[in-house]
Amino acid sequence: MLAFGVGGLLPAVVQEARTGEVLMLAWMDAEALARTLRTRRATYWSRSRGEYWVKGETSGHTQRVEAVRIDCDADTVLLSVAQTGPACHTGTATCFTGRELPLAPPDADEAPSADRAPASHAAASDDAAPEAAAEPAAPEEPA
Amino acid sequence: MLAFGVGGLLPAVVQEARTGEVLMLAWMDAEALARTLRTRRATYWSRSRGEYWVKGETSGHTQRVEAVRIDCDADTVLLSVAQTGPACHTGTATCFTGRELPLAPPDADEAPSADRAPASHAAASDDAAPEAAAEPAAPEEPA
Repeated sequence: MLAFGVGGLLPAVVQEARTGEVLMLAWMDAEALARTLRTRRATYWSRSRGEYWVKGETSGHTQRVEAVRIDCDADTVLLSVAQTGPACHTGTATCFTGRELPLAPPDADEAPSADRAPASHAAASDDAAPEAAAEPAAPEEPA
Repeated sequence: MLAFGVGGLLPAVVQEARTGEVLMLAWMDAEALARTLRTRRATYWSRSRGEYWVKGETSGHTQRVEAVRIDCDADTVLLSVAQTGPACHTGTATCFTGRELPLAPPDADEAPSADRAPASHAAASDDAAPEAAAEPAAPEEPA
Protein backbone atom coordinates (compact mmCIF):
# COMPACT_ATOMS: atom_id res chain seq x y z
CA MET A 1 0.00 0.00 0.00
CA LEU A 2 2.78 2.46 0.94
CA ALA A 3 5.24 3.38 -1.80
CA PHE A 4 8.60 3.07 -0.08
CA GLY A 5 11.39 4.72 -2.03
CA VAL A 6 15.16 4.39 -2.31
CA GLY A 7 16.47 2.07 0.42
CA GLY A 8 12.90 1.15 1.40
CA LEU A 9 12.45 4.54 3.07
CA LEU A 10 9.75 7.19 3.21
CA PRO A 11 10.30 10.82 4.23
CA ALA A 12 8.47 11.59 7.47
CA VAL A 13 7.48 15.23 8.00
CA VAL A 14 7.09 15.97 11.70
CA GLN A 15 4.71 18.74 12.80
CA GLU A 16 4.01 19.97 16.33
CA ALA A 17 0.34 19.25 17.01
CA ARG A 18 -0.44 22.38 19.04
CA THR A 19 1.67 25.06 17.33
CA GLY A 20 1.65 23.71 13.76
CA GLU A 21 5.40 24.25 13.52
CA VAL A 22 7.21 21.89 11.14
CA LEU A 23 9.87 20.46 13.45
CA MET A 24 12.01 18.23 11.26
CA LEU A 25 12.11 15.69 8.47
CA ALA A 26 13.30 12.16 9.16
CA TRP A 27 13.12 8.80 7.40
CA MET A 28 11.10 5.64 8.09
CA ASP A 29 11.17 2.15 6.74
CA ALA A 30 8.19 -0.19 7.20
CA GLU A 31 9.42 -1.34 10.61
CA ALA A 32 10.03 2.21 11.91
CA LEU A 33 6.50 3.15 10.83
CA ALA A 34 5.03 0.01 12.43
CA ARG A 35 6.86 0.77 15.72
CA THR A 36 5.68 4.38 15.61
CA LEU A 37 2.04 3.38 15.07
CA ARG A 38 2.25 0.70 17.77
CA THR A 39 4.03 2.68 20.48
CA ARG A 40 3.15 6.33 19.63
CA ARG A 41 6.84 7.08 20.14
CA ALA A 42 8.27 8.60 16.95
CA THR A 43 10.75 6.05 15.64
CA TYR A 44 12.91 6.65 12.59
CA TRP A 45 15.63 5.02 10.51
CA SER A 46 18.97 6.82 10.70
CA ARG A 47 20.53 6.80 7.23
CA SER A 48 23.83 8.02 8.69
CA ARG A 49 24.05 5.40 11.44
CA GLY A 50 22.12 2.61 9.71
CA GLU A 51 19.88 1.93 12.71
CA TYR A 52 16.50 2.72 14.24
CA TRP A 53 16.26 5.59 16.68
CA VAL A 54 13.43 6.55 18.98
CA LYS A 55 13.29 10.34 19.06
CA GLY A 56 14.27 11.59 22.50
CA GLU A 57 15.51 8.26 23.82
CA THR A 58 18.94 9.79 24.50
CA SER A 59 18.06 13.52 24.63
CA GLY A 60 14.74 13.29 26.45
CA HIS A 61 13.28 15.46 23.69
CA THR A 62 10.57 12.96 22.87
CA GLN A 63 7.79 13.10 20.31
CA ARG A 64 4.47 11.62 21.41
CA VAL A 65 2.62 10.78 18.22
CA GLU A 66 -0.98 12.01 18.00
CA ALA A 67 -1.64 11.27 14.32
CA VAL A 68 0.07 9.79 11.28
CA ARG A 69 -1.14 10.61 7.79
CA ILE A 70 0.04 9.48 4.36
CA ASP A 71 -0.07 11.62 1.26
CA CYS A 72 -2.03 11.16 -1.95
CA ASP A 73 0.55 8.92 -3.57
CA ALA A 74 1.47 7.13 -0.33
CA ASP A 75 5.16 7.98 -0.49
CA THR A 76 5.35 10.50 2.38
CA VAL A 77 4.08 10.41 5.96
CA LEU A 78 3.10 13.36 8.14
CA LEU A 79 3.39 12.94 11.90
CA SER A 80 1.48 15.17 14.29
CA VAL A 81 3.36 15.07 17.58
CA ALA A 82 3.58 16.56 21.04
CA GLN A 83 7.23 17.64 21.18
CA THR A 84 9.09 17.76 24.50
CA GLY A 85 11.93 20.31 24.46
CA PRO A 86 13.72 21.44 21.31
CA ALA A 87 13.15 19.18 18.30
CA CYS A 88 16.57 19.77 16.75
CA HIS A 89 19.70 18.00 17.98
CA THR A 90 21.45 21.40 17.62
CA GLY A 91 19.20 22.77 20.36
CA THR A 92 17.01 24.97 18.16
CA ALA A 93 13.23 24.69 18.54
CA THR A 94 12.92 23.18 15.07
CA CYS A 95 15.51 21.96 12.57
CA PHE A 96 14.54 24.94 10.36
CA THR A 97 14.80 27.67 13.01
CA GLY A 98 17.04 30.55 11.92
CA ARG A 99 17.95 28.93 8.59
CA GLU A 100 16.17 31.08 6.01
CA LEU A 101 17.41 31.44 2.42
CA PRO A 102 17.36 34.79 0.57
CA LEU A 103 14.30 35.30 -1.65
CA ALA A 104 13.79 37.71 -4.54
CA PRO A 105 11.82 40.86 -3.64
CA PRO A 106 8.05 40.27 -3.28
CA ASP A 107 7.29 41.82 -6.69
CA ALA A 108 9.50 39.25 -8.42
CA ASP A 109 6.53 36.91 -8.80
CA GLU A 110 4.82 39.53 -10.99
CA ALA A 111 7.28 38.71 -13.77
CA PRO A 112 5.57 36.48 -16.39
CA SER A 113 8.85 34.69 -16.97
CA ALA A 114 11.78 33.89 -14.69
CA ASP A 115 13.94 35.34 -17.49
CA ARG A 116 12.66 38.78 -16.51
CA ALA A 117 14.62 38.66 -13.29
CA PRO A 118 17.45 36.20 -13.81
CA ALA A 119 19.84 35.38 -11.01
CA SER A 120 23.28 35.75 -12.55
CA HIS A 121 24.35 32.30 -11.36
CA ALA A 122 21.33 30.75 -13.06
CA ALA A 123 21.17 32.77 -16.29
CA ALA A 124 23.05 30.16 -18.28
CA SER A 125 20.71 27.36 -17.27
CA ASP A 126 17.73 29.60 -18.01
CA ASP A 127 19.00 29.95 -21.58
CA ALA A 128 19.38 26.20 -21.78
CA ALA A 129 15.97 25.55 -20.23
CA PRO A 130 13.32 28.09 -21.27
CA GLU A 131 10.55 28.73 -18.75
CA ALA A 132 8.17 26.88 -21.09
CA ALA A 133 9.97 23.70 -20.15
CA ALA A 134 8.74 24.18 -16.60
CA GLU A 135 5.13 23.64 -17.67
CA PRO A 136 3.98 20.14 -16.78
CA ALA A 137 2.86 18.01 -19.73
CA ALA A 138 0.65 15.85 -17.50
CA PRO A 139 -1.75 16.73 -14.68
CA GLU A 140 0.15 18.00 -11.69
CA GLU A 141 1.48 15.53 -9.18
CA PRO A 142 3.17 16.37 -5.91
CA ALA A 143 6.04 14.14 -6.94
CA MET B 1 26.35 24.26 0.97
CA LEU B 2 23.14 22.27 0.39
CA ALA B 3 23.38 18.50 0.68
CA PHE B 4 21.48 17.27 -2.36
CA GLY B 5 20.62 13.59 -2.13
CA VAL B 6 19.86 10.76 -4.55
CA GLY B 7 19.42 12.14 -8.07
CA GLY B 8 20.60 15.57 -6.93
CA LEU B 9 17.27 16.17 -5.16
CA LEU B 10 16.11 17.57 -1.84
CA PRO B 11 12.70 16.94 -0.27
CA ALA B 12 10.72 20.18 -0.08
CA VAL B 13 8.09 20.36 2.67
CA VAL B 14 5.40 22.87 1.76
CA GLN B 15 3.47 24.65 4.52
CA GLU B 16 0.62 27.15 4.20
CA ALA B 17 1.90 30.40 5.70
CA ARG B 18 -1.38 31.52 7.30
CA THR B 19 -2.92 28.26 8.50
CA GLY B 20 0.27 26.29 9.23
CA GLU B 21 -1.14 23.29 7.36
CA VAL B 22 1.44 21.00 5.77
CA LEU B 23 0.21 20.94 2.18
CA MET B 24 2.50 18.50 0.38
CA LEU B 25 6.01 17.24 -0.10
CA ALA B 26 7.75 17.65 -3.44
CA TRP B 27 11.32 17.47 -4.73
CA MET B 28 13.78 20.12 -5.85
CA ASP B 29 17.12 20.04 -7.58
CA ALA B 30 19.46 23.05 -7.46
CA GLU B 31 17.78 24.66 -10.49
CA ALA B 32 14.24 24.20 -9.12
CA LEU B 33 15.34 25.81 -5.86
CA ALA B 34 17.07 28.66 -7.71
CA ARG B 35 13.93 29.30 -9.81
CA THR B 36 11.76 29.21 -6.66
CA LEU B 37 13.97 31.73 -4.84
CA ARG B 38 14.16 33.96 -7.92
CA THR B 39 10.48 33.97 -8.91
CA ARG B 40 8.67 33.18 -5.62
CA ARG B 41 6.65 30.67 -7.63
CA ALA B 42 7.08 27.19 -6.11
CA THR B 43 8.95 25.18 -8.72
CA TYR B 44 9.71 21.50 -8.31
CA TRP B 45 11.30 18.58 -10.12
CA SER B 46 8.85 15.85 -11.07
CA ARG B 47 10.52 12.51 -10.53
CA SER B 48 7.70 10.75 -12.41
CA ARG B 49 7.82 13.02 -15.47
CA GLY B 50 11.48 13.99 -15.34
CA GLU B 51 10.81 17.69 -15.75
CA TYR B 52 10.38 20.92 -13.81
CA TRP B 53 6.88 21.99 -12.87
CA VAL B 54 5.66 25.29 -11.52
CA LYS B 55 2.93 24.53 -9.00
CA GLY B 56 -0.40 25.77 -10.31
CA GLU B 57 0.78 26.52 -13.84
CA THR B 58 -1.84 24.13 -15.24
CA SER B 59 -4.32 23.95 -12.34
CA GLY B 60 -4.21 27.58 -11.25
CA HIS B 61 -3.60 26.33 -7.71
CA THR B 62 -0.45 28.34 -7.31
CA GLN B 63 1.91 28.66 -4.37
CA ARG B 64 3.35 32.11 -3.77
CA VAL B 65 6.51 31.56 -1.76
CA GLU B 66 6.91 33.73 1.34
CA ALA B 67 9.92 32.00 2.91
CA VAL B 68 12.32 29.15 2.23
CA ARG B 69 14.28 27.55 5.06
CA ILE B 70 16.83 24.74 5.13
CA ASP B 71 17.22 22.30 7.96
CA CYS B 72 20.16 21.74 10.31
CA ASP B 73 21.97 19.37 7.96
CA ALA B 74 20.98 21.25 4.80
CA ASP B 75 19.30 18.28 3.13
CA THR B 76 15.65 19.39 3.40
CA VAL B 77 13.90 22.64 2.52
CA LEU B 78 10.74 24.07 4.09
CA LEU B 79 8.62 26.39 1.96
CA SER B 80 6.15 28.79 3.54
CA VAL B 81 3.59 29.60 0.85
CA ALA B 82 0.30 31.33 0.15
CA GLN B 83 -1.71 28.53 -1.46
CA THR B 84 -4.44 29.33 -4.01
CA GLY B 85 -7.15 26.65 -4.06
CA PRO B 86 -6.58 23.03 -3.04
CA ALA B 87 -2.92 22.04 -2.83
CA CYS B 88 -3.45 18.41 -3.87
CA HIS B 89 -3.93 17.36 -7.49
CA THR B 90 -6.71 15.06 -6.21
CA GLY B 91 -8.68 18.13 -5.13
CA THR B 92 -8.23 17.77 -1.38
CA ALA B 93 -7.05 20.81 0.60
CA THR B 94 -3.72 19.14 1.34
CA CYS B 95 -2.11 15.93 0.07
CA PHE B 96 -2.60 14.49 3.57
CA THR B 97 -6.29 15.36 4.01
CA GLY B 98 -8.40 12.34 4.98
CA ARG B 99 -5.48 9.91 4.84
CA GLU B 100 -4.89 9.00 8.51
CA LEU B 101 -3.31 5.68 9.54
CA PRO B 102 -4.57 3.71 12.58
CA LEU B 103 -2.59 4.35 15.78
CA ALA B 104 -2.38 2.24 18.93
CA PRO B 105 -4.59 3.48 21.81
CA PRO B 106 -3.18 6.56 23.60
CA ASP B 107 -1.97 4.50 26.56
CA ALA B 108 0.22 2.39 24.28
CA ASP B 109 3.10 4.84 24.76
CA GLU B 110 3.09 3.99 28.49
CA ALA B 111 4.51 0.56 27.66
CA PRO B 112 8.27 0.46 28.37
CA SER B 113 8.77 -1.77 25.34
CA ALA B 114 6.96 -2.07 22.03
CA ASP B 115 6.88 -5.81 22.72
CA ARG B 116 4.17 -5.10 25.31
CA ALA B 117 1.73 -4.31 22.54
CA PRO B 118 2.98 -6.03 19.41
CA ALA B 119 1.15 -5.62 16.14
CA SER B 120 0.67 -9.16 14.84
CA HIS B 121 2.10 -8.30 11.42
CA ALA B 122 5.25 -6.91 13.07
CA ALA B 123 5.78 -9.51 15.81
CA ALA B 124 8.22 -11.53 13.72
CA SER B 125 10.42 -8.56 12.93
CA ASP B 126 10.30 -7.58 16.61
CA ASP B 127 11.81 -10.95 17.45
CA ALA B 128 14.52 -10.34 14.88
CA ALA B 129 15.12 -6.77 16.03
CA PRO B 130 14.83 -6.29 19.82
CA GLU B 131 13.63 -2.86 20.99
CA ALA B 132 17.13 -2.22 22.36
CA ALA B 133 18.31 -1.92 18.76
CA ALA B 134 16.17 1.21 18.48
CA GLU B 135 18.40 3.12 20.89
CA PRO B 136 20.80 5.39 19.01
CA ALA B 137 24.49 4.80 19.68
CA ALA B 138 25.41 8.33 18.62
CA PRO B 139 23.87 11.74 19.40
CA GLU B 140 20.51 12.11 17.73
CA GLU B 141 20.35 13.39 14.19
CA PRO B 142 17.19 14.15 12.26
CA ALA B 143 18.50 11.94 9.47
